[in-house]
Amino acid sequence: MQKKYLMDFTEGDAITQTFLVVRSQLRTSVNGSYYIDIELCDKSGKMTGKFWKATRDVFESFAPDDFVQIRGTLEKYRDNKQLRIDSIIPVQETYVNYADFLPTTDKPIEPMLKKIKDAIATVQSEPLRALLQAFFNDPEFVAQFCMAPAAVTYHHPYRGGLLEHTSSMVEMGLGMLATRTELDHDQLIAGLILHDIGKIEEFSYDRAFRYTNRGKLIGHLVIGADMISTRAKAIPDFPQEPLELLLHLVLSHHGEHEYGSPRLPVTVEALAVHHIDNLDAKINAFEQIRRNSADPDATWSEYSRMFGRSLYLGNGGAAAES
Amino acid sequence: MQKKYLMDFTEGDAITQTFLVVRSQLRTSVNGSYYIDIELCDKSGKMTGKFWKATRDVFESFAPDDFVQIRGTLEKYRDNKQLRIDSIIPVQETYVNYADFLPTTDKPIEPMLKKIKDAIATVQSEPLRALLQAFFNDPEFVAQFCMAPAAVTYHHPYRGGLLEHTSSMVEMGLGMLATRTELDHDQLIAGLILHDIGKIEEFSYDRAFRYTNRGKLIGHLVIGADMISTRAKAIPDFPQEPLELLLHLVLSHHGEHEYGSPRLPVTVEALAVHHIDNLDAKINAFEQIRRNSADPDATWSEYSRMFGRSLYLGNGGAAAES
Amino acid sequence: MQKKYLMDFTEGDAITQTFLVVRSQLRTSVNGSYYIDIELCDKSGKMTGKFWKATRDVFESFAPDDFVQIRGTLEKYRDNKQLRIDSIIPVQETYVNYADFLPTTDKPIEPMLKKIKDAIATVQSEPLRALLQAFFNDPEFVAQFCMAPAAVTYHHPYRGGLLEHTSSMVEMGLGMLATRTELDHDQLIAGLILHDIGKIEEFSYDRAFRYTNRGKLIGHLVIGADMISTRAKAIPDFPQEPLELLLHLVLSHHGEHEYGSPRLPVTVEALAVHHIDNLDAKINAFEQIRRNSADPDATWSEYSRMFGRSLYLGNGGAAAES
Amino acid sequence: MQKKYLMDFTEGDAITQTFLVVRSQLRTSVNGSYYIDIELCDKSGKMTGKFWKATRDVFESFAPDDFVQIRGTLEKYRDNKQLRIDSIIPVQETYVNYADFLPTTDKPIEPMLKKIKDAIATVQSEPLRALLQAFFNDPEFVAQFCMAPAAVTYHHPYRGGLLEHTSSMVEMGLGMLATRTELDHDQLIAGLILHDIGKIEEFSYDRAFRYTNRGKLIGHLVIGADMISTRAKAIPDFPQEPLELLLHLVLSHHGEHEYGSPRLPVTVEALAVHHIDNLDAKINAFEQIRRNSADPDATWSEYSRMFGRSLYLGNGGAAAES
Amino acid sequence: MQKKYLMDFTEGDAITQTFLVVRSQLRTSVNGSYYIDIELCDKSGKMTGKFWKATRDVFESFAPDDFVQIRGTLEKYRDNKQLRIDSIIPVQETYVNYADFLPTTDKPIEPMLKKIKDAIATVQSEPLRALLQAFFNDPEFVAQFCMAPAAVTYHHPYRGGLLEHTSSMVEMGLGMLATRTELDHDQLIAGLILHDIGKIEEFSYDRAFRYTNRGKLIGHLVIGADMISTRAKAIPDFPQEPLELLLHLVLSHHGEHEYGSPRLPVTVEALAVHHIDNLDAKINAFEQIRRNSADPDATWSEYSRMFGRSLYLGNGGAAAES
Amino acid sequence: MQKKYLMDFTEGDAITQTFLVVRSQLRTSVNGSYYIDIELCDKSGKMTGKFWKATRDVFESFAPDDFVQIRGTLEKYRDNKQLRIDSIIPVQETYVNYADFLPTTDKPIEPMLKKIKDAIATVQSEPLRALLQAFFNDPEFVAQFCMAPAAVTYHHPYRGGLLEHTSSMVEMGLGMLATRTELDHDQLIAGLILHDIGKIEEFSYDRAFRYTNRGKLIGHLVIGADMISTRAKAIPDFPQEPLELLLHLVLSHHGEHEYGSPRLPVTVEALAVHHIDNLDAKINAFEQIRRNSADPDATWSEYSRMFGRSLYLGNGGAAAES
Repeated sequence: MQKKYLMDFTEGDAITQTFLVVRSQLRTSVNGSYYIDIELCDKSGKMTGKFWKATRDVFESFAPDDFVQIRGTLEKYRDNKQLRIDSIIPVQETYVNYADFLPTTDKPIEPMLKKIKDAIATVQSEPLRALLQAFFNDPEFVAQFCMAPAAVTYHHPYRGGLLEHTSSMVEMGLGMLATRTELDHDQLIAGLILHDIGKIEEFSYDRAFRYTNRGKLIGHLVIGADMISTRAKAIPDFPQEPLELLLHLVLSHHGEHEYGSPRLPVTVEALAVHHIDNLDAKINAFEQIRRNSADPDATWSEYSRMFGRSLYLGNGGAAAES
Repeated sequence: MQKKYLMDFTEGDAITQTFLVVRSQLRTSVNGSYYIDIELCDKSGKMTGKFWKATRDVFESFAPDDFVQIRGTLEKYRDNKQLRIDSIIPVQETYVNYADFLPTTDKPIEPMLKKIKDAIATVQSEPLRALLQAFFNDPEFVAQFCMAPAAVTYHHPYRGGLLEHTSSMVEMGLGMLATRTELDHDQLIAGLILHDIGKIEEFSYDRAFRYTNRGKLIGHLVIGADMISTRAKAIPDFPQEPLELLLHLVLSHHGEHEYGSPRLPVTVEALAVHHIDNLDAKINAFEQIRRNSADPDATWSEYSRMFGRSLYLGNGGAAAES
Repeated sequence: MQKKYLMDFTEGDAITQTFLVVRSQLRTSVNGSYYIDIELCDKSGKMTGKFWKATRDVFESFAPDDFVQIRGTLEKYRDNKQLRIDSIIPVQETYVNYADFLPTTDKPIEPMLKKIKDAIATVQSEPLRALLQAFFNDPEFVAQFCMAPAAVTYHHPYRGGLLEHTSSMVEMGLGMLATRTELDHDQLIAGLILHDIGKIEEFSYDRAFRYTNRGKLIGHLVIGADMISTRAKAIPDFPQEPLELLLHLVLSHHGEHEYGSPRLPVTVEALAVHHIDNLDAKINAFEQIRRNSADPDATWSEYSRMFGRSLYLGNGGAAAES
Repeated sequence: MQKKYLMDFTEGDAITQTFLVVRSQLRTSVNGSYYIDIELCDKSGKMTGKFWKATRDVFESFAPDDFVQIRGTLEKYRDNKQLRIDSIIPVQETYVNYADFLPTTDKPIEPMLKKIKDAIATVQSEPLRALLQAFFNDPEFVAQFCMAPAAVTYHHPYRGGLLEHTSSMVEMGLGMLATRTELDHDQLIAGLILHDIGKIEEFSYDRAFRYTNRGKLIGHLVIGADMISTRAKAIPDFPQEPLELLLHLVLSHHGEHEYGSPRLPVTVEALAVHHIDNLDAKINAFEQIRRNSADPDATWSEYSRMFGRSLYLGNGGAAAES
Repeated sequence: MQKKYLMDFTEGDAITQTFLVVRSQLRTSVNGSYYIDIELCDKSGKMTGKFWKATRDVFESFAPDDFVQIRGTLEKYRDNKQLRIDSIIPVQETYVNYADFLPTTDKPIEPMLKKIKDAIATVQSEPLRALLQAFFNDPEFVAQFCMAPAAVTYHHPYRGGLLEHTSSMVEMGLGMLATRTELDHDQLIAGLILHDIGKIEEFSYDRAFRYTNRGKLIGHLVIGADMISTRAKAIPDFPQEPLELLLHLVLSHHGEHEYGSPRLPVTVEALAVHHIDNLDAKINAFEQIRRNSADPDATWSEYSRMFGRSLYLGNGGAAAES
Repeated sequence: MQKKYLMDFTEGDAITQTFLVVRSQLRTSVNGSYYIDIELCDKSGKMTGKFWKATRDVFESFAPDDFVQIRGTLEKYRDNKQLRIDSIIPVQETYVNYADFLPTTDKPIEPMLKKIKDAIATVQSEPLRALLQAFFNDPEFVAQFCMAPAAVTYHHPYRGGLLEHTSSMVEMGLGMLATRTELDHDQLIAGLILHDIGKIEEFSYDRAFRYTNRGKLIGHLVIGADMISTRAKAIPDFPQEPLELLLHLVLSHHGEHEYGSPRLPVTVEALAVHHIDNLDAKINAFEQIRRNSADPDATWSEYSRMFGRSLYLGNGGAAAES
């Protein structure tokens, strides 16, 4: 029998299994007793749970990023799944492997990485190609780049998500370059590959995904620009214009000031990267909402704060409800 | 003794009565047991209730749009009324009549409909009058138009609300036409009567009021424009300009893009319909808030999301609280 | 032969006539010579003109609010009328009368004033009626109220405009009170009559219309509230609640913070006055644009900054141009 | 042993002490029983509490602004402190003193008041100085001015807060005047001292702080302007320009329409007061958040609605969490 | 020698050639004489010109959509090219062909049309494929679809622009469908092909491009939805859900209310079409700005109102100017 | 007789003097002849001029950043001063000194620089003080820092403006630190001194002030953060937290995303720097408008695009004009 993961269970399933703790809070319930509000994950995804028989001792027996053995039942809370927990027992780290418990892309890493490396090989400009190689010939960078998520909760929120997102954008970019000669091939490829690299420092992801202090204080746009500047300084005589255009592209790729871009795109390649990014992220975000919907027959999703509206999940178009 | 309806009860009243189920959800309470969060209505309005002794069996014994016999007590939750339910028993449809249980305008239908038909008779343009008659000589359309609410929760959220809103706007329009010769009589009257007709397909209202899929995907502005186009095509040689102006008026009557109008009013009649609509809707919405306030002595309403502020209900102006 | 006024002339007409100077500037034309850019008015309206043969002496021979004898031709500049001036000669004030040269409502004053006074008589609340009478029994106030425009350029920008606007709003309000018992008759009538009285100090209008310093620094909302406070203090034992509601109504009647209201309407009467005001102002503003369009056959107006778009003037719907 | 106040207790402390009731609500808990949601304060600050064993009788045994003897334990709810209450017993007012129970500035009143009076003495303009003295020689005004908070919850939300805020701003203004000769000394000093005086009528603060009806309907900007107008009228021949500039400054000191200013600053002194106000208020508001954080080791605050983000509280910069 | 077109000329070139009149206005110059402000085009693009020796007779000798023989010199005005005209002589329509004078895509029509027809063939849903064929088997529709521009001035503002834009988007969509199985192939293809068809009625393009009245009053989103509804009604038993989703996609494809979409995208295909549309349009718009820049060496474009900023045109990155 | 500079001349003055060319454009006037639109400066400020007798030869005889001998008359254009030029003759650079011709602070450099250095000496944290000294012990940095303007046109738009702005802010900060112990002294001082240093690369100012490409593509916030990162890396074991807080402060000091800050202030020191910056900049910007007003008696300024309104310049409060 194949092992079931968190997202494979459905309403009513009894569950006895080990999970990684993302977040845990001791709260006072409205009848005055304690309960634990916990977020758990394994490689299939995240879920919240409630342990009603909590004591302060149980609460203090584990911490975020620990593993716990959970016994309970999967229920539905509003339209999302939630665990009703009967017992929580800490599990020693020696017996488990973090990587098996963190949400991870379901696409193989190597082909995605190869797609990026092949794209680097098409870059004609020597300094830009050298810059890209400086990153992708550095095993430490590559390891992080292949492991980082693209976001904590929004789009591609799983290990390998940054790689998957970047690789998918590179593919679209190469398709566009085939017919659109007005785009500068090298700037576009370099921009697509490097636009989000700051995320490897914006998040921590060796345990449950979180923003780092650095990520919250500085943000992945400026972190990424700094990473590029630093590597470019190490390349003798790196020409000023392509570097400044690339930094501009990274800093402007959110497209609008209100989304945290200190500059707005002024090159056609920066515009293109911004819109390809948006397209790929929105499609993936939609899929996250579809996947996480507790009711497989729901025509409409719960209200999504990210989109500011309820989304149409289809499933035959049963009667909608306001 | 006269029968009391949902909105007639006050805090502390014991209630044993049949209601229509608007919405029902089985939830896990914070002590881990089930409870049912239910919304009920009768012709006087809607109210939420909580049934703390819920079981999954009770929950599955009825569904939205079913009737249930409720025993419980009316309480106050924040500043709204709420039912604390002691028992819920399904009631067979044969014994009750939907119409008696849906909120309904307290104004008689016929005089309001007559006001609209009289206004149609004042339209000089033959094609516009023919278009209006095509709608109002069609018994099926008239039946729906007289039954539809003007909104699910905002203004005139009761059967006959669309008719009441339209009739009231026609009355204001006729008053204005008496002195303002700069307004085109026929465009204004046709626009006032037809601007909201798309709502008969945007909502379902033979049971508890809900948005239809069509309503959510397309919206009453475009639905209404489509209904007008379709009827106009059936009238030989319908002149292009007045039709396009009327479609424009319907599409632009929300006045601003942010309220879902694909066009902004560019004719004086479209401007007038937009502002008369706003005036009539806001006054009615205020009254809904006043009516639904649980505390008849409250000087200020609860925070209203629709208005984005708390409203002054008066009642002698006791000390306000922040 | 009847006298023709500024707005009666059409393109190509030769004009020799006396006008009031609204604004006058000596400018250097692009061939380096001087020209005078002047704005003139008579009771029919305002128009700009250009005097190409200007000298500094001619420019200094008159000032704003002086009268000048103009000889020239009416031309079209973009879609507005403009005077091409051949000579400008100052005219002594003794020979003319300001009142004849300022744009003035074409509706008789007395019936409009009577409508307001009749409405005051319907007010049941003694203090509110006394307050209204304190204003309308004061000949100086009445003289100003009947002379003030409702705006410098936007809506009702002519002497008597404030009276016309107020009277028209009172009429609409009385119509609404006939059927809507949820509105407080006295608050609504007092609010409609007094909401804009601050304009008598916001503008100066014994000469060409201008904002006063007080108008620019404080604005008619707060000026109006201050006028009401002052008069109410003179009435013994004026009750606090209706006064505060009335002040609130005046301060909130622009409806949104961005239009300069320090408070947003929280009473149904304040909401009603706001929307009635908007409706009456927008219809009149549309008519100003229609009237001032130089081309009587134009289907679309010039771009209107006030509305943020071009308006549909009709006239048979000739081919539109982007 | 020194007496401990509400904000001195830490998680886990048992508390038996008298507090002032700010707000009290009887609610139905999700297991169907009653509980009381209460807000309490003493001079050190405010805190919410929950009394799970509530009955309707207990709830009705006291009201807001009464004193109650509380027995319970301090717990943490999310990142804020909260009381879990075991008993509530009303205490008679004769035995306690309101002033001891309302949050109060920890800075001595006299030096702050003296700073303001000294600043008044530097005003050269006779009428402006007379105006300021009219306020600060009036014992009733001074008493209220020294007692009022600067806000109910935002910045300086304690008795004496208005004085502390004003005094601190005056100090900054005097510092700036030392080097910036482009600022009008008298307007700036008068503006700094009077800009917020309307708050003495916007709030009530002899009991727990609340907005008055007048405060909600009119707001402290217009109330303040009215107070100034009234005092100025009592000074013979008060010149018009400085008065209008001062009124303008008060009305515009929120800087933007969206923050409720009916006018935007057009004098350099009005600009300066607006920015000094913002600076002083924001720093104090940050400190309120830091003080009220339940976890003294937290690196980041809870999400702050006022700032629209989580704030960095420091404490060594432990790992951040999204 | 090859014929030169309008966009081939450079500063200083003498030009004697026939052009099509887009727009013509008689204006009074600042020295009081007439001049004609004219917009001309041929198939290479549009340009403005000034004829300083204008008389009313010359002005009235031709009209928009007439052909004129121009003699003049190409100059630079700000950073755009402009014609200084020495003579304007009307040319009879018999001697010229409109199609030669309207800006036209430089890509061949047939391959682009074939790409769309091939995509239609991949649609599996019978009714959707029938709907698409109903359009593309109708020679009159196809003729208009291949001739229409995608905009008057923004992106693809040339004959065949709509086809070029649609075809390019279909290509991107097919590329995405290869790897993204979460997208509904048929909805995406149908949406990409039909989303902008309303433009064939929004503009007139048999002469110089203009908005039609219908285009201005109703807009291409609702026009396109109406065209689809009408064709779908002619197909027996067209299923409701895919039709409503397709109408939703067309109505929502501008992505935001503020860009005139009455609905916001709620399906993943509607989101995808919106973002692909944006990407293709922005890249083309950038190219229009690059092409129309008068100075081939400029590093920065003039301020672009469409983008709200100046764009980086490159060319070696000479010193920027503010 | 003392030499007069550009800003010393008044309307009507004949001028024969050498100026530096900021900007120069050859334009076609509306009578078809050429004219030169030129911007000139000397150390007192900038002014535009028009040379009506232009030829292409004259235009090509000089370029921006050259010196020209101007003969002409000072006139008023709208409410700004403008030169009417009679002749333009290029002047060789050998005879003049750029520094004499660029607008320069009228405050002595040394005391302002000393104020900053004294503040550095108060910093207790060794690494932060070392970082500040790394900048201020570097003669090249200091030279640029003392020469750079704080903006091209907005506030402190003159050589030494950055120093003057920074020094003035440091002074305010020191004043605040005297009483506000909640502020971190070292972070605040370091932040005040370094927040704008990116401007030394954002602008070029050895000739007329312009944005550099780097300035436009990247902006002074990110440039400044990069300068700080680079210097900090050269200091062994620079601790991470204070560096990230300082970078955060620099990146967030515009306070809002819409003003180009990629992060919003989350520390109290970042909030303080933002508001002190705003205060100092707005006061200076107001003074620039007052200084550049052509009419010394004007009560109101021309409409200011930066402030979005007309400002009150005072001067006795003569009658305002709309």
